[in-house]
Amino acid sequence: MPRIVVLRIGHRIPRDSRVTAHVALVARAFGAAEVWVDRRDKALEARIRDLVERFGGPFELRTGIGWRQAIRDWKGTVVHLTMYGEHLDAVLERIPGGDLLVVVGAEKVPGEVFQMVDLNVAVGNQPHSEVAALAVFLDRLLRGEGLRREFSGRFKVLASPRGKLVEEDST
Amino acid sequence: MPRIVVLRIGHRIPRDSRVTAHVALVARAFGAAEVWVDRRDKALEARIRDLVERFGGPFELRTGIGWRQAIRDWKGTVVHLTMYGEHLDAVLERIPGGDLLVVVGAEKVPGEVFQMVDLNVAVGNQPHSEVAALAVFLDRLLRGEGLRREFSGRFKVLASPRGKLVEEDST
Repeated sequence: MPRIVVLRIGHRIPRDSRVTAHVALVARAFGAAEVWVDRRDKALEARIRDLVERFGGPFELRTGIGWRQAIRDWKGTVVHLTMYGEHLDAVLERIPGGDLLVVVGAEKVPGEVFQMVDLNVAVGNQPHSEVAALAVFLDRLLRGEGLRREFSGRFKVLASPRGKLVEEDST
Repeated sequence: MPRIVVLRIGHRIPRDSRVTAHVALVARAFGAAEVWVDRRDKALEARIRDLVERFGGPFELRTGIGWRQAIRDWKGTVVHLTMYGEHLDAVLERIPGGDLLVVVGAEKVPGEVFQMVDLNVAVGNQPHSEVAALAVFLDRLLRGEGLRREFSGRFKVLASPRGKLVEEDST
């Protein structure tokens, strides 16, 4: 599987704390290796470290990342998810197979981002959620493989038709 | 297309205002007709009405809905999205084709919900976002049809490789 990193820009504290946490959960659950957040946020780092300790990795969240530098230095393709981009249906086949940096903005994205990236991709040209856009993009890109990834942490949720089944590693 | 309604339970104000708004945006963009929210929230109603006026419908958000009654009265299938349910890959083919109520909880979901519904569906058995789960569930269920739906509102975003193209209806 190619290495996928999600770059979250425009993160404001506390306004975006919860939505950026959702971005990180989605990145992990749908097949990304890391999330980089532009603004330093120690509380968010701790929260995700705790999640990885409980439910498994490998997965990392880093904050305080200079986004311009990150985009410039990336060896591979850079995709920006935006409702203004080309429709996912039209663009999916044109995304090269190697390592991928996926840029996900908060409310307001600087115009230069649209110019710096290889592709601006719209998961539908309707107002929606960057959390949802990231999930559907990764699900389509990896053809559902991300969602079948196995993690090894202290807890493992077992699929169940009724109720909650959680296995705890006692080793 | 079958009628799809999303039922959001456990909505707390102001804690969930933003995430429930994301749920509504996703429901609209991915093919649902309505969102019903258990707690009365006039500000959220106004926000979504404004969105529909600008970017088009039909789509409606209603708040102050008794969720037990809504589930009991639903004529059709009721699905609950939860990380504890059966894996989406295993269950998708078993969802009947007719009208569908999709239950989406906030942080803590009462245990009885797991018993009242027809299917508990996990969009992956990893902690993730209900916003993402709803998007991927609808995208898979409707085989991408939801995302190609046309709306007619005052503004229409046009797909574009670089930058923002928005058409305003001047009639």
